[in-house]
Amino acid sequence: MSESTSVNYPQEFKGFAINDPSKWDNPKLVSYEPKKFGPHDLDIEIECCGICASELFSLKNDWSDQPLACLSSSYGPKTQVVGHEIVGKIVAKGTDVTMYEVGQRVGLGAQAASCLKCSRCMNNNEQYCPHAVGTYCSRYEDGYVSQGGYASHVRALDHFCFPIPDSIESKFVGPLMCGGLTVYSPIKRNIEDVKGVPHVAIIGIGGLGHMAIMISKAMGATVTAFSRNYDKKEDALKMGADHFVATQLDKGWTEAYRDQFDLILNCASSTKYLPINDLLPCLKVNKRFISVGLPHKEEQLDLKPIQFFSNGCTIGSSKLGTRQEAIELLDLAAKHDIKPWIQEIPICEEGVHEGLTKLDKGDVKYRFVLTDFHRFFNTGK
Amino acid sequence: MSESTSVNYPQEFKGFAINDPSKWDNPKLVSYEPKKFGPHDLDIEIECCGICASELFSLKNDWSDQPLACLSSSYGPKTQVVGHEIVGKIVAKGTDVTMYEVGQRVGLGAQAASCLKCSRCMNNNEQYCPHAVGTYCSRYEDGYVSQGGYASHVRALDHFCFPIPDSIESKFVGPLMCGGLTVYSPIKRNIEDVKGVPHVAIIGIGGLGHMAIMISKAMGATVTAFSRNYDKKEDALKMGADHFVATQLDKGWTEAYRDQFDLILNCASSTKYLPINDLLPCLKVNKRFISVGLPHKEEQLDLKPIQFFSNGCTIGSSKLGTRQEAIELLDLAAKHDIKPWIQEIPICEEGVHEGLTKLDKGDVKYRFVLTDFHRFFNTGK
Repeated sequence: MSESTSVNYPQEFKGFAINDPSKWDNPKLVSYEPKKFGPHDLDIEIECCGICASELFSLKNDWSDQPLACLSSSYGPKTQVVGHEIVGKIVAKGTDVTMYEVGQRVGLGAQAASCLKCSRCMNNNEQYCPHAVGTYCSRYEDGYVSQGGYASHVRALDHFCFPIPDSIESKFVGPLMCGGLTVYSPIKRNIEDVKGVPHVAIIGIGGLGHMAIMISKAMGATVTAFSRNYDKKEDALKMGADHFVATQLDKGWTEAYRDQFDLILNCASSTKYLPINDLLPCLKVNKRFISVGLPHKEEQLDLKPIQFFSNGCTIGSSKLGTRQEAIELLDLAAKHDIKPWIQEIPICEEGVHEGLTKLDKGDVKYRFVLTDFHRFFNTGK
Repeated sequence: MSESTSVNYPQEFKGFAINDPSKWDNPKLVSYEPKKFGPHDLDIEIECCGICASELFSLKNDWSDQPLACLSSSYGPKTQVVGHEIVGKIVAKGTDVTMYEVGQRVGLGAQAASCLKCSRCMNNNEQYCPHAVGTYCSRYEDGYVSQGGYASHVRALDHFCFPIPDSIESKFVGPLMCGGLTVYSPIKRNIEDVKGVPHVAIIGIGGLGHMAIMISKAMGATVTAFSRNYDKKEDALKMGADHFVATQLDKGWTEAYRDQFDLILNCASSTKYLPINDLLPCLKVNKRFISVGLPHKEEQLDLKPIQFFSNGCTIGSSKLGTRQEAIELLDLAAKHDIKPWIQEIPICEEGVHEGLTKLDKGDVKYRFVLTDFHRFFNTGK
């Protein structure tokens, strides 16, 4: 291990960062000051971290019309580390942390903090807290801009770090922390009151969709997977889908699936190329079409209000999940042996570059996980 | 009463009809053959009938890209009578009708039939039955095109005729049969599981909206009425609204109402001029923005998927209501003395013309009801 990648923790964290969105695909190793340590903070020494499509939008700055937040942080780095499917070991805890001990393995997803006092936080909807702080690219009240998990360490509020059942390997937990939780929450919220066996449609068999199939099945649903063509049919059935529809090749599927679904979960990162007119009639009365892939900020919905009238359905989105839902998901994953289909990439500059560029081309089956953090950063002692 | 307006029932019904959408505002008195009398049919001798905005769309043929359905009916008139807020007395019943007696007063709304066998009909969602037949402009399986309530009589399936509590005057019942039920159903479905006092936003204080305010209040909700300016403020408060927002004049209302509503019910007949970006954040987490005014078939939603992410809300529509909901609504109206704000127009050619043209200009407070049917048609003996 070269000296230069070792970390002088707790004075510094090290990670792969950019400061220019045009160079989104080539983060460089940097050393940076962590956020001030709060009484409910945990420091996690990172073991592995999934690569989420959110990173592409954030590094390219496609969700914002402002410059990268880190460039105007009041302290901390003027560079940006991403990554929010983090697994690691607690190496320090704030004075008021009672739920964890140093040494415990935890996961951290896309949210690192919230106020924990507002009506949303108090009603098990902390992912929608107006003061929510994302795990990266997000400004804390004290002016620090959060830094993510392609790094030696990460600092986050204890509430947003989740205990991991011993039976699940860390590399399989990573993708569950953002992608898995993001699909689990709307699946749970939309099928828990269904009488009988719920029927869930999963659109888009990629990073999110492949976990959505496995999670829906584990929750007892019948699952129909939708993809444009047959390329992913075999995989989708292996993941547990009961039925498969190739929307551009199969004929008559709108008729065949009319009035069938308790939920359509759109896991594609865009609604732009979806046959929404054909999909909405497949919902049962008053059910929801929920998108979990957050698209480009300028993307418009191509939709007419009259399309909702045949079944009183609604369309919208869902964002992440709560601590309670994360713990439920990890429990479900342990019980049903849910393992995201991953491709491991040992962390290093070339590895980060490879993961981001391949993901950008859709060349992944189905989730990259950056691994070997201990070796690279000379941690894990 | 002139002889010519009298009706030779049961051979004929008489009503005000068009056969050319360009003459939508000038229906003429016609005589026509009723649909074949089925074993579950009722004949209602009409006493009064509300004028609903649906009539404007239907007469102008704005919801369809086909010619008027009546022009290709296999039997019955080649002209079209509209009207679906009907109150009258049963004057004949089919051989299998057990729930009603001749002479009973009933109401009929916008739906005259459905299959009563499919999963939607069996699950208290008969308004979404794929074989639903509207009270007018809608083709029965036998090829007859349904004729509405600006008429001496109407024929409909017993299931879609509702018994009326004695304490409510017929003229106040009419508008409840379509408009009232159309708002009652989504209000009920979206607030019945709310813990505590639900908060409902009503957008558009017109025919639908004014009933939505009264109905929401009667159901125990806090109601905030939204209109473009202050013209209807006083009325809205009299109807029972707790708060009033003039969206184009008041400042800072998005902030003031952020995270407040369990339901936003859009009663405007278009989403086009609505400040949707400002309204959606006013919903609580995972709640719905529901439109009940069915817009022009070509109207597009001007909406970006990213707008749903702040609270996981969804947007969609709701269509009419069920028999059970209609009966609940009539019960609620009787208990809480709900009286739609109506302007009565005695039925006649000029009256129908006046009602339609004034409604088209929005010159109504808040619902026209055509009355005096017995005098005009020489019925009610």
